[in-house]
Parts: sequence; C-alpha cells; structure tokens
Amino acid sequence: MFDKNTMVGRSRQQKWLDRCSEFLPILDWGLHYQRAHFPGDLTAGIVVATVLVPQAMAYALLAGLPPQIGLYASILPPVVYAFLGTSRLISVAPVALDSLMVGAAIAPLAAENTPKYLGLALLLALTIGAIDILMGVLRLGFLVNFLSQAVISGFISAAAIAIGFSQVKHLLGLKITQTESFLQLLTYLAQGIKETNLVAVSLGVTSILFLVYFPKWSGKELNKRGFQELTIVPLTKSAPLLLVIGSSLLVWFFHLDRIAGVKVVGNIPKGLPSLSFPALDGDTVTALLPAALAISFVGFMEAYSVGKFLASKRRQKIDADREFIALGAANISAALTGGYPVAGGVSRSSVNFSANANTPLASIITALIVALTVMFLTPLFYFLPQASLAAIIVMAVSSLFDFGTLKRLWVYNKADAFAWISAFLAVLITSVEKGILLGAAVSIILHLWRTSKPHIAVVGRVGNTEHFRNVLRYEVKTCPHVLAVRVDASLYFVNAKYLEDYLIKAVSDRPEVKYLLLVCSAVNSIDGSALETLKSLIADLKTRGIEFYMSEVKGPVMDGLLKVGFIEELGKERIFLTTDRAMQALECV
Amino acid sequence: MFDKNTMVGRSRQQKWLDRCSEFLPILDWGLHYQRAHFPGDLTAGIVVATVLVPQAMAYALLAGLPPQIGLYASILPPVVYAFLGTSRLISVAPVALDSLMVGAAIAPLAAENTPKYLGLALLLALTIGAIDILMGVLRLGFLVNFLSQAVISGFISAAAIAIGFSQVKHLLGLKITQTESFLQLLTYLAQGIKETNLVAVSLGVTSILFLVYFPKWSGKELNKRGFQELTIVPLTKSAPLLLVIGSSLLVWFFHLDRIAGVKVVGNIPKGLPSLSFPALDGDTVTALLPAALAISFVGFMEAYSVGKFLASKRRQKIDADREFIALGAANISAALTGGYPVAGGVSRSSVNFSANANTPLASIITALIVALTVMFLTPLFYFLPQASLAAIIVMAVSSLFDFGTLKRLWVYNKADAFAWISAFLAVLITSVEKGILLGAAVSIILHLWRTSKPHIAVVGRVGNTEHFRNVLRYEVKTCPHVLAVRVDASLYFVNAKYLEDYLIKAVSDRPEVKYLLLVCSAVNSIDGSALETLKSLIADLKTRGIEFYMSEVKGPVMDGLLKVGFIEELGKERIFLTTDRAMQALECV
Repeated sequence: MFDKNTMVGRSRQQKWLDRCSEFLPILDWGLHYQRAHFPGDLTAGIVVATVLVPQAMAYALLAGLPPQIGLYASILPPVVYAFLGTSRLISVAPVALDSLMVGAAIAPLAAENTPKYLGLALLLALTIGAIDILMGVLRLGFLVNFLSQAVISGFISAAAIAIGFSQVKHLLGLKITQTESFLQLLTYLAQGIKETNLVAVSLGVTSILFLVYFPKWSGKELNKRGFQELTIVPLTKSAPLLLVIGSSLLVWFFHLDRIAGVKVVGNIPKGLPSLSFPALDGDTVTALLPAALAISFVGFMEAYSVGKFLASKRRQKIDADREFIALGAANISAALTGGYPVAGGVSRSSVNFSANANTPLASIITALIVALTVMFLTPLFYFLPQASLAAIIVMAVSSLFDFGTLKRLWVYNKADAFAWISAFLAVLITSVEKGILLGAAVSIILHLWRTSKPHIAVVGRVGNTEHFRNVLRYEVKTCPHVLAVRVDASLYFVNAKYLEDYLIKAVSDRPEVKYLLLVCSAVNSIDGSALETLKSLIADLKTRGIEFYMSEVKGPVMDGLLKVGFIEELGKERIFLTTDRAMQALECV
Repeated sequence: MFDKNTMVGRSRQQKWLDRCSEFLPILDWGLHYQRAHFPGDLTAGIVVATVLVPQAMAYALLAGLPPQIGLYASILPPVVYAFLGTSRLISVAPVALDSLMVGAAIAPLAAENTPKYLGLALLLALTIGAIDILMGVLRLGFLVNFLSQAVISGFISAAAIAIGFSQVKHLLGLKITQTESFLQLLTYLAQGIKETNLVAVSLGVTSILFLVYFPKWSGKELNKRGFQELTIVPLTKSAPLLLVIGSSLLVWFFHLDRIAGVKVVGNIPKGLPSLSFPALDGDTVTALLPAALAISFVGFMEAYSVGKFLASKRRQKIDADREFIALGAANISAALTGGYPVAGGVSRSSVNFSANANTPLASIITALIVALTVMFLTPLFYFLPQASLAAIIVMAVSSLFDFGTLKRLWVYNKADAFAWISAFLAVLITSVEKGILLGAAVSIILHLWRTSKPHIAVVGRVGNTEHFRNVLRYEVKTCPHVLAVRVDASLYFVNAKYLEDYLIKAVSDRPEVKYLLLVCSAVNSIDGSALETLKSLIADLKTRGIEFYMSEVKGPVMDGLLKVGFIEELGKERIFLTTDRAMQALECV
C-alpha cells in the first residue's frame, strides 16, 4: 500500500515535471545533465564563441548598426533560447540574412548612426518577437509551408548576392550608407568605384584568401601530424578569430588607419548593455510590420530547418510551434538588452554540432564568453579593419548561392523554376521582403494553375477483367452508349469548371452517349463550389437526355455528399461501389 | 480534275470562312440567317427594349450618372457584342452589379454630376475593355476560376444588399450623393431619415408592389382567357415599362414634382450621343485599375455564366476567351459613345431567351429601339419619378441575395461557408472590389490549408488478397519490419513537410521498422519542393537505418522522377509496380 502510494505520488510528480519540461525544455536537459556531456559542451561553447564574436560585429555592420549591437544580441538571446528552445544544437544570435533585411527595413525610416536607427532596430526585434510568439501560440507554424522550396532557394540566392555586394563597399574602403535595395546599392557602388582605397582592397582580398585557404591548409597539416579530429575542428574553425587578431595587429603596427585611411571598427563602449525598451509607436510598428513578418518567417525557416537537420542526426525531435515561441522570446530579450533581431544561424549551428555540443549549455558558455568579451576586450577591436569583417561576411554567405537547385528545378518542373526566378529577381529588383511575398504568390498561383487542369481519362475495360484503364494508353473495351471518365484529382473551385467543360465537350462529341459514369477513385475531396458545379452539370446533362452515374466514391467524400442531401437528390442507385458493377448495370460488359 | 479543283477551292473558301467566323461569329449566324428566326428575334428585341430602357436609366443613376448615359451604353455595345460574342442570347448593356462598382470606384475621385465624373466613367469603360481584351488574347479566362462559387455567392449577396440600400435614398426621396462604401451610405441614410418625403415613399412602395404583383396577376388572367405563352411573356415582362408610363403620368397630372417635391428624372438631352474619347491619364488609370480589374472579372463572370446556361439550353457552345474579347470590345465602344461599363445581364438575357430570341439580331433590334428612344422619346421621361426607377432596381437585385447557398455550404463544408461570410462581410464593411479580393484570398488560403494535411493511412494486406487497406478501417495483416503508408494526395510544397513529419514520427514510434514503403496510388504529381523534401526524408531515414521503397508510382510521375535522376539515385529496384510485389520482396506476405 505504502509503496503504491509513493508510486502514484512519484508518477504524478513525474507527469507534472514532464508537462513543465514540455514548456521549459531546460528542465529536461538541465535536471538530467550528464557530466560526460560537459567536455563537449565546453569545447563547442568556446569554438562557437570564436566564430560568433567576429560574425556578430560583422552582421551588425551589415544591418547598418554599430558592431557592439551585434555582440549585445549574442548574450541574453542565446541564453533565453537555451531555456525554451526544443533544438539542443542551434546557435541563436545575429544571422546574415536577417541582418540584411533589418538594414533594408530601417534604412528608409531613419539615418544610419542615429539614436532613431538604433531605436528602430530594438522595436523591430520586439515586433518580430511578438509575431513569433503569436505564430507559436496560434499554431500557425504551418504557414511557413506556403513558401515553396523553390521560392526559398531563389530568395536566399538573391539575398546572398545582395549581402555579398553590400560588403563590396567595405572591401573597397568606400563610404556608402545603408541602402534600401540592391539596385540602389549598385548605383552607389558604380558612383563610388573611383574612390577605391587600395590598401583596404588588399586587406580585404588577403582576408578572403586567408579564410578560404587557412582551414584547408591547417586541417591538412594537423591531420598529417596525427592530431585528432577533436583538436582539428576547433583550430580550423578559428580562422575568423585569427583573421581578426592578425589584421588588427597589422593596422595597429603600420598605422594603416591614419596613414592609409583604412576604416577600422574604432571605439566600442566597454561593459554589458544597459536595459532598453523600444519606444512603442503604432505608426512605426505598422510601417515595420511587413518587414517584421518577412524577417520572422525567414528567421524561423532558417532556424527550424537547421534545427531539424541537426536533430535528425542525433535522433532528437524539435517542435515547430515551440520553436516559434522560443525564437520570439529570444528576440524580445534582444529588444530589452540593446540588441537587434536574432535567429538560428546555419553555419554557426553546424560548427556547434561538429565541435561536439551535447546540450544548450554550449550556447550558454558561448554567451558567457561574449559577455566577458564585451566587458573587458572591446578596446582590442579598435584597430580591426572593416575590410576583414566584410571578408568574414562574404565567406559566410558565399555558400548560400544555390544555382544548383535552379538547374534541377528547370529539368524537373518549369513552374518551380519560374517561381525560383521570380523570387530571385524580385529580391534583387525590389526588396527582400517584397521578393519573398511575390515568390510565395507566384508559387501558389502556379500551383493552382497546375491543378486547374487535372488529368482526365476516358476509361474502358481491360479484356474480361474488372480493371478499367485509359483508352489512350491501353487496349480496352468501351460501349458507345456509356462514357466512363476518371478524373485524377480532388474537385475544388479552381478545377471544377474545367471538368464540367471537359465532360460537356465529351458528350457533345459523342451524340450516342446515354450514360455518363464519373469514376471517382482519385477524388479525395469535393469542395462546396465543385459540388455546385457538379449539380449544374447533372442538370445540364439531363436537358441533353444523358443520365449521370458515379463509381468508386471514397468514404469521406460519400459522407459529405450524404450529409448535404446530394446522394438522395441524385438517387442512391446511381452510385456504384466499383466501376465494374456500374458497367454491368449500364449493360456495358 | 476541274471538279476536284472546284472542290478544293470551295473547301479552301469554306476553311477561310470558318476561320473568319471563329473570330467574327456574326459571319456564322448572319450569313446563314433563316427567315423563320425573324419573328422570334423581333419579339424578343422589342420585349427586351421595354425592360432595358427603364433599367438602363435606373442603373446609370445607381452608378451616380445621369440617366441618358445608361441609354447611350445600350446602343453601340450590344451591336458590337452581336458581331463578336459567342453567345447568341445574352443582352449586353449596363448591369446592376457593375453599376454599383462603377459608382464606388469613381465617387472618391470626383463629385457627382461633374464632367470629371462622366469622364472617369468613360475612362473606366476603356480600361475594363482593355483588360477584357488582354485577358482574352492571353487566354487568362481560367483566372476567373480562382473565385470560388462560395466567394461569388457571398459577394453577390452583399452587393445585392448594398444596391438595395443605395436605392433607399430614392425611395425615401432623400438627397444623398454617391457613396464609397456601404457603411458610409448607412451613416448618410441614418442622418437623413427625418427628411423623408412621404409622397415619394408612397410612390416607391406602390411601384414595388406593382412590379411584384402585376406580372403574376396579368399572367394568370391572360392564361385564364386562353392567350398563348408567346403573347403572355411580352405582356408580363412589360411591367417596368407600364410602371414608367403610369408613374410619369401620375406625377405630371398632379404636379407632384412641384407641389410635393418628388424627384423626377428631368431633362434628358434628345439625340444620339456624340463620339467621346476619355482623357488618358496614367495616374488616374492606376487609381482605377483595381476597380477595373474587379469589374472586368465580375462582369465577365455574370455574362459567361448566364451565357453558358442559356447556350446549354439550346445545345450551343460559348468560348470563355472569345467572350472576354467581345465584352472588351463592347466596353471600348461604350467608352467611345458616351456610355459607361457594360456586361451581360442575367435577368435581361433570360427575358431575351424566354421571348424566343434566336440570334443576336434580337439584340440589334433592341439597340435600334433604344436609339430611336434616345432620338425622339426622351422628353417623355421628364416626369418619371426616381422612386419608380429605384423600385425597378430593388426588384432586379432582390433575387440576387443568396442565403440558401450559405446554408448549404455550412452543412457541407465549413471552410467554404467561412469564405462566403468573409466575402460578404468584406463587401459590406470595406468595398466591393476589396471584398472580392479578400474573399478570393480567403478561399485560396483555406484550400491550401485543407490540402496541407492530406489523408495518410498505414495500410496492410486484406486476407490473402492483393488488396491493401487502411489498418484503422479494415482487419488487415501487417509486418513489424515493414511500414507501408499510402498518401491520398499529390505532393507539393504545402503538404510535403507534413508528410515528412508524419513519416518520421511513424518510424520513430515503431523502432522495429526496417523498410518504409510509400504507396503512391493517389499521388498524381510531385512538385520540385516535394521532391527535395522526399530526398531529405530518404537521407534522414538512412541515418536511422531505414530503407525507403515506393510502389504504384503513376506513369507521368515516374517520367518526371526518371528525368531528374531521382530513380537512378534511389535505385530502380526500390520501386515496385504493385504494393503486393513490394511486400513480397520485403518478405511481408
């Protein structure tokens, strides 16, 4: 008795804990933390920090913000995500794509390097956070599926180009402010090209070459000398950090900032960010809303897809709606601590994974290192040339351009390729968020158009069997007084009229037809409009002296037709379980 | 030889004529005109004219235009349509729905009764004509199918209410200018209700009662006295004309316009309209474009649906794209002759049909009568009270309100009912064209949402047969190491991820599964995004040690998969013609 009670008590406690840990995943991994996981988490935390610190500063510049804002956004948000996120491996902090979109969204509303610009970045993070949480709570995560893979690929490819070109100004050492669109940027670049700073260009090009070849070279060398994979990964991944240190030393030693005019990061305030709260202003929120929606979707997609990919490698699961909530909370925390919009980065999360992170503790360690950096090390970044940061960005996005997908789609499905190209061009010609919206609209319209003319086949009996097949593909037996037609699609408002036109034409072309049999084996549903069309078709056929029959109506479809009285109206005897029985009843054997 | 040549010559001439008459249907019916058709055409022409003359004036008032504009739009447009239209029976002239939309579109841009207002009506007709022709030439008629029957019904019902209420001002004898939205109209009506003109109200109510009861009463009486159907129809349809004559005489005799302040039509300029050409102004065209698109669609839908319905009764055919072109030409002719946008009216076309029209000659006769009316009879309309015209409109639209469809949809399919309600409310709360757009968006999103979670069934073998059925509905045999799943939908970007999640969860819940078999009997197509998802699913399964197989892949789907190299990648031996063979190969018998 006593034992049993304890059992019940325990199981209740367990249930309660399970429920809590469903909402707070940290209870799950935190309370059952295994010591064996610590070395991996520690290494990954350190390695990701070496990648993140330069990246965060670079991405902030990409968004038109001072570099420290990127660092601020890398402290609290990853910790908040560690408490709430269902992925154990993604690294939440600034990402390139979102940073580009943030810059494009804010640039028309305020001048760069003004308090208003900073305030708008906070407000945008807050708005994105609110949208994310709403999406998660209302379980609207499925809306992300409305963006086809073709659109996402075209959109990301164009964004990669836009990001790459946005760094050309830093690589050339030009002074160009944040631009709203790719075309505007190109104009500015074309105008400024004469003022290229040759020292900055050399630094930039050297930086890119270093980032490309150092990991390959060091990996090969370390491998040759018999180092283990666990040692090699952190070292090869440290290329950005080494670049930051090396190029800073170079600028400091040769006074390149003063004598050659090389732009450096300059003074970064020391210390943790103070609490911030964005000024809420209805009109501004409305103005930011389209961009916020687009950034929320793009950020979620990036985080969710990399999270799902890494989870599957560890046989873990992640939950779309909870991910939305966790990312939303992370963005709100960014808004409250002087940051700007964050998401889960693909390359950084992969580094986290391959550096053997086991739990979100790795992200907390990363955040701690960033916090320490902000508190003590910012003066070291004074001489960091912007050209090196630009090189880090260019390298980070160079792998995003995805022409291979376009080629595959072109071969497989021209409509998808067209959606890819629409999203791609729209992003480059108009803006990132308009591009993604237009791409989504194009892929939806093309999908509807594709399904608007379903495959319809006149069928006949194969030999003496009970099988019925397309008369155009098989040698089959038909009767002149019966027309049996199979439609290979569900019936809904977009394709119903096409079916009606097809059937009317089919019976007009065959004046001897007395019975029309609709074979519904591929009809998974019939919507309200299609039902009305079906009724008017039946009435139309009646005036032509043709009777309407159906066969192989699926269970759920039949249930709906019964409920609305359609079956009664048509007559139960006109619906047959199989096409064979229908044909026998219509004396076509 | 000679004979043969002549044959060839004739057949060539015939071919050429066929081709011409395809573009100019008048060559078809005009060159083969049968004398026997004339009496019907003449009667119908006269009967429709008696309906059209009052209607045209009333609808012009509904659009905020002087009554003669409605008459002008009833002269050349129906003649142009008679040359180009593929329907032999529809009556092209002003219609209620379009007139309401024209008024709502122009009201924000110009004050009523100004030359600018008239000019905008011309420009709108020209724009609509251009859109129609473009739609026809580019064969975009299928776009009309994107408006589901539910949306159209909800939209028309709300428009009927809006039109009905817009006439309340005339029925009450109030002075209210053209309004942009239903809500604005209601506000104005509420403010003006105290100034109701009791004489006008009595006239209006009497007019409605006359229009309701005269046709019934006269039909019954004539029937009793043994008159034939052919005589009865013209007489019962003449109610509007009799009302116009009777109420004009009443106002004239009792001087109701002067002593009781009853608003009358007043002076209508005598004579045919002069040629007009709307002032082309890019900004104005842009401002009118959304409304023009909506009016073009609505006008086409109305004309096409009634045309199709009447054509089927006479076993004739109509062509959507050519209809667009014919309606476009009619609208352009309206713009050139001082008219305003026209379409094919449902009720008027039905009158044309039941008065025994045989060819478009009936419409030409109607147009001639309208022209004669404009030339000689306009002074007779001076005393025609606006309340009587309002009564004609109210009667014309009263049958459009379609609550029955909502009730049916509610029972059959809640999503369709929701689309109905969205369109209905949006039309009443915002505007007619926004309502139709929102309704279309709602029905498309609901459709995508509905198809985003397709029916998926785990299947097993029925007894010792070759049939496989849902394990939840049938008693079937399965094996623990094989999971056979049938998906009842085509795979595309919106539902691909759902399928992936479903399958990953399914194999996670069944750790003993070694082979996953996807039964594709209901998969009519796989788009590019779904293909990518499928590939990542297969890779994911591989890391879990599960092999992927497919069965019953349809021909066209297989062709696409072969072309893109998917089959080669997967391995030909992993695709089976039937589920039975697959199960045998996987040792699950």
